[in-house]
Amino acid sequence: MKKVDHIGVAVKSIDNSLDYYIHTLGLSLLAIEEVASQGVRVAFLDAGNIKIELLEPLATDGPIAKFIEKRGEGVHHIAFGVTDIRTRMVELKEKGVQLLQEEPKPGAGGAEVAFLHPKSSFGVLYELCDKSGKGE
Amino acid sequence: MKKVDHIGVAVKSIDNSLDYYIHTLGLSLLAIEEVASQGVRVAFLDAGNIKIELLEPLATDGPIAKFIEKRGEGVHHIAFGVTDIRTRMVELKEKGVQLLQEEPKPGAGGAEVAFLHPKSSFGVLYELCDKSGKGE
Repeated sequence: MKKVDHIGVAVKSIDNSLDYYIHTLGLSLLAIEEVASQGVRVAFLDAGNIKIELLEPLATDGPIAKFIEKRGEGVHHIAFGVTDIRTRMVELKEKGVQLLQEEPKPGAGGAEVAFLHPKSSFGVLYELCDKSGKGE
Repeated sequence: MKKVDHIGVAVKSIDNSLDYYIHTLGLSLLAIEEVASQGVRVAFLDAGNIKIELLEPLATDGPIAKFIEKRGEGVHHIAFGVTDIRTRMVELKEKGVQLLQEEPKPGAGGAEVAFLHPKSSFGVLYELCDKSGKGE
């Protein structure tokens, strides 16, 4: 893991929270998009060296909706930027890490993503985020 | 807020979780210290562009112990690196943000720190972390 790409933050509503991030904290909005495969609408904010990704649930039965229902709004995951995500997944499995999926899934911004089970990571949901197919 | 300095992660035991961060995730250990004012022992790991700060409670009645008791291990806070922390605190208060203290407190690494109330920040505990007195 060479660096952190973004921090994912679950919010009930991007429309309601965006003003706080832009005008109170002074971050710049980079993009808003829907990620159908995850059932979320996301907003990326520029926090200088990393991005903050606001995640708003689109469906009441998706993972972000369930997270908010159980724990309230707050930090959902930390994403490491990686290349060769499939190789990284194999390496982690060989080290005994439980992954939440066998194959990478499409994430925001055209990335391929995979999640490490929080039980393997002392309570933190870590994501692998591979944008190497996007020229990053 | 110009950039993220570190992400604080509450763990029951640094001794038990450090091996995962170093040998499984491949991060480098930067420092371990006790922060008496916060009742914690902390380990800083180099995540490339930011640091990950593992926070282990030293006392059963401190904020990290209570956090773990209530929510389990996991992400505790996100720290923005700032200069002129007192000015930043005044600016945030003028924008309606509730702060958890009136004056900065001593944090790890000789920093001055202050926290924004999660109710002001849509569930996230944000920290202001000023190391300008340390030449950073």
